Amino acid sequence: MEKFPVTDKTEITRLAKRGVYDKATVYSILDEALVCTLAYAKENEPFQIPTGFCRIDDTLYIHGSVGSFYMRELRDIQPPVCISVTLLDGLVLARSAFHHSVNYRSVVLFSKPHLVTDQTELYHALEVFTNKMCPGRWDDVRKPNEGEWKATMVLSFNLQEASAKVRTGPPKDDEEDYTLDIWAGVQPLNTIRGEALPDPALKDGVPLPEYLKVK
Amino acid sequence: MEKFPVTDKTEITRLAKRGVYDKATVYSILDEALVCTLAYAKENEPFQIPTGFCRIDDTLYIHGSVGSFYMRELRDIQPPVCISVTLLDGLVLARSAFHHSVNYRSVVLFSKPHLVTDQTELYHALEVFTNKMCPGRWDDVRKPNEGEWKATMVLSFNLQEASAKVRTGPPKDDEEDYTLDIWAGVQPLNTIRGEALPDPALKDGVPLPEYLKVK
Repeated sequence: MEKFPVTDKTEITRLAKRGVYDKATVYSILDEALVCTLAYAKENEPFQIPTGFCRIDDTLYIHGSVGSFYMRELRDIQPPVCISVTLLDGLVLARSAFHHSVNYRSVVLFSKPHLVTDQTELYHALEVFTNKMCPGRWDDVRKPNEGEWKATMVLSFNLQEASAKVRTGPPKDDEEDYTLDIWAGVQPLNTIRGEALPDPALKDGVPLPEYLKVK
Repeated sequence: MEKFPVTDKTEITRLAKRGVYDKATVYSILDEALVCTLAYAKENEPFQIPTGFCRIDDTLYIHGSVGSFYMRELRDIQPPVCISVTLLDGLVLARSAFHHSVNYRSVVLFSKPHLVTDQTELYHALEVFTNKMCPGRWDDVRKPNEGEWKATMVLSFNLQEASAKVRTGPPKDDEEDYTLDIWAGVQPLNTIRGEALPDPALKDGVPLPEYLKVK
């Protein structure tokens, strides 16, 4: 199983047993999450950008407008960045207030932005990005025209320094609390894709694609 | 309607019409989100911590172990922080790849950590935190004992510099694309609290609390 090297920045020190360094786990979390938060600093002042993203092999991509202040800063300054994603899987309800927790899968990674200029890489990144939102979508849509390509900036981030943190399972209470008459367990949290709502301006007779039908 | 002042750091410059500065909106987003990401920097290198939080009036609270490396750093260095939350409400599927988007409500805020030492404030913050996970939970659980209080660090952040960004509604396509035979609309994303799973070690006869029953 291929693993990320453990570095000073990615080592999980608090509740170390929740730390996961294998690439398959880190990548499965990145691939499931639709948004990440990207942080960078200027004169030690941190900024965060919540944004969509996709992963292809060992590279993470974000895209935005060439007019975006943040995209331009990332392109021009190429600052060190920290990117994180968090998937919440459940509320962990212990007998004691102290042992309440959440079940989650999170990734924190460190990298630097690179401007993508190669047309093939750019096109492929946007295809994967669109299909991540909705598998199969790219084939159906009107592809970007020349003006739209020029208006779109894609930045890539090498995935070399990353780790995941994962909690699963029931609460852990203190031994003496297990006899208390307090309900304990997990309330699952699920992100559900609901029934698609047609654009009020949708052309008559255009059917709902198969990939949008709620199973 | 009370508003946050617009500062250099909180002004929404990209798609400015999505910027929201009224406190009621910012606070409703903070109160709905179960996790935030907190970013700070050391020597211009950014770090992020995904963590639970709660808000009381104009203050945001996080808590953690007194043994946590990050909590200690935040307490000791009191660095400027950026905190963000993002709620994803739907996938916006346009006719053109370019106009694909998401419906979301996000908050980005700037502040500094303060160690909470007042016992009343500490207790109230943990009560609100627990009830945010699950309204009504605090009354039912075993309250923290002295050792647990000593093991818990609570940090507060004044909410003075914050803004929200919100997108709602159907896709916006280019005028000439509305005649294309491409389905367009919104696929809602909903976070659902599932049926509670009892701890395998739950004491016999302890009933599921009303507040955990899925309506």
